[in-house]
Amino acid sequence: MAEGAVEVPTLRWTAESIEILDQTRLPATVVVRRLETVDEVVAAIRSLAIRGAPAIGACGAYGVALGVRRAPRPTAALLAELRQQIGEARPTAVNLRWAVDRVVDACLAGVAVEDWGAVALREAQAIFEEDRQACARIGEHGRLELPGAVSLLTHCNTGRLATCGWGTALGVVYAKAARGEPVRVVASETRPLLQGARLTTWELERAGIPVTLVSDTAAAFALSRGMADAVIVGADRIARNGDVANKVGTLAHAIAARQFGIPFYVAAPLTTFDPAAASGGDVVVEQRAPDEVRRFGAALVAPDGVAVWNPAFDITPAELITALITDAGVLRPPYPEAITAALRESGALGPAA
Amino acid sequence: MAEGAVEVPTLRWTAESIEILDQTRLPATVVVRRLETVDEVVAAIRSLAIRGAPAIGACGAYGVALGVRRAPRPTAALLAELRQQIGEARPTAVNLRWAVDRVVDACLAGVAVEDWGAVALREAQAIFEEDRQACARIGEHGRLELPGAVSLLTHCNTGRLATCGWGTALGVVYAKAARGEPVRVVASETRPLLQGARLTTWELERAGIPVTLVSDTAAAFALSRGMADAVIVGADRIARNGDVANKVGTLAHAIAARQFGIPFYVAAPLTTFDPAAASGGDVVVEQRAPDEVRRFGAALVAPDGVAVWNPAFDITPAELITALITDAGVLRPPYPEAITAALRESGALGPAA
Repeated sequence: MAEGAVEVPTLRWTAESIEILDQTRLPATVVVRRLETVDEVVAAIRSLAIRGAPAIGACGAYGVALGVRRAPRPTAALLAELRQQIGEARPTAVNLRWAVDRVVDACLAGVAVEDWGAVALREAQAIFEEDRQACARIGEHGRLELPGAVSLLTHCNTGRLATCGWGTALGVVYAKAARGEPVRVVASETRPLLQGARLTTWELERAGIPVTLVSDTAAAFALSRGMADAVIVGADRIARNGDVANKVGTLAHAIAARQFGIPFYVAAPLTTFDPAAASGGDVVVEQRAPDEVRRFGAALVAPDGVAVWNPAFDITPAELITALITDAGVLRPPYPEAITAALRESGALGPAA
Repeated sequence: MAEGAVEVPTLRWTAESIEILDQTRLPATVVVRRLETVDEVVAAIRSLAIRGAPAIGACGAYGVALGVRRAPRPTAALLAELRQQIGEARPTAVNLRWAVDRVVDACLAGVAVEDWGAVALREAQAIFEEDRQACARIGEHGRLELPGAVSLLTHCNTGRLATCGWGTALGVVYAKAARGEPVRVVASETRPLLQGARLTTWELERAGIPVTLVSDTAAAFALSRGMADAVIVGADRIARNGDVANKVGTLAHAIAARQFGIPFYVAAPLTTFDPAAASGGDVVVEQRAPDEVRRFGAALVAPDGVAVWNPAFDITPAELITALITDAGVLRPPYPEAITAALRESGALGPAA
């Protein structure tokens, strides 16, 4: 199976607009939506029509290009507005803020205003392409790290639908499959929005990779019964100490993996690391609408108005993580040193004092 | 709030039939169904229209009475058929088998055939009443065990809808409320069938007890953030070594509670203990239909036909359980000795050799 062989791109720049596969409609309906305004870009990110930390980063970057190129006369004030409006569409994934800043800053780096449109688009396309390549490297690093792991349990969706390439955690799965190595996936459904059930099973089935769906409640029992050789998930933000913010439910899987002696990996590009977060305590965890839990589509599944606590993410402490699989290699404990070295090497941190 | 103050009974014998509150329709619709044949009783148990280990025990007992009383000429062969047909409607909860056996054996204990109908009904009503009293004792034992616990996280539904009284784990909540002690509940929604979202929140709101609903994925994060002082769940079968079979998802909560230093309790009557199961490995875990996970009501939430692993229960090892709160008192480790003594005292086990 060739990398990038998915027939419908997750997102792409085309005809002066952004085309996205509307992930709120999967798996029932495959709908491509065209985003033509910044408001539409923000709404698509907020509604999870496009989701996955790397994919929303690229979408946000294209969103800045869209805003600049559609403005009759772009100004520094417009750039500031785009930086704020798009960069804060969702708070937890650091890639979005990072990508938006990168495009805005590229325009502000002494470029003539008439070139902003070209520079912004070039920068957004570079972000897209770099993420595609980062996915490929993550996949290969993970493949080499996990030679004996055939059955991988994962959470949420971290594949082609979440990135600009073949994915982060699922990138490891695709890398194994691409080399003809045996691999199969146990996917937890990922309430409340069911990205595991709706998206991961859908894209793995299209790729011909065996997948078994379990409710989130069954994952620990599956691990206790030896149904997975390893757990591998993605990340929305990784702190300097190795604490990981990822889709809510990740923490429970990490704890269960530790209980049953199963290695627990996080796969993410370096763009997901946040040098400004010393630990998970510094990460803002997005709270989403109660009706995501109270309702299922139109159906009410709990008393109307019942109190709900609905964090989109949780924080998995570094101590529960076997290793971090990145595009720059596999980072191992002690994480503060390994992460600092990798970020310094990549230029995301200044040189040691 | 008075014990038993729920307006719609979970189940009751009336007019030579069994009335049940159809729990598949809650919380949207309150529908009372009348079961008039043994087939209807079995179907109601299988479909979870009536559920909860103690409640299906009582329903099964009334089902035997129904079968005997409606037979023009009951025979030992009929009793054998009822024992098998009703007793095996669901495999995991031991109360069902126990209650059915008790009613059948009461008829077979030298009673004239013309008295079977009266004996069976009397025995079923005794089972119902004993469970109601067991709930009251469990609640009081739990209240005294957990004087400082104000916020309790629970899973599935273990209250009035699951028993003949005010419940097992929720019985502790009701006992606290009845004494005017502060108490509130965090309820995990309990996929795939959402008993936590649909039933626990519904009955607690009707009882005026504050409840916050979380997705199953958010429970570990809630525990990590100090949102519960203790976790308390029910049980479908408890082995002689203290391993507990309960609604799938229980294991994950037990592991998370241990991780964050939060006590984890199981509340159940002695009728839930299975002297024939030495450990959790001896418990048959019911596998249910894949479509419970693939679909949500009529809506498909995963690719049609995707492989699903859908155990109804999981096994929590005794080592993760702080104590077992029973109608005969609070049992503590080492469990094999405590359980054997309690069962021997109750007559469920013969005297020591």
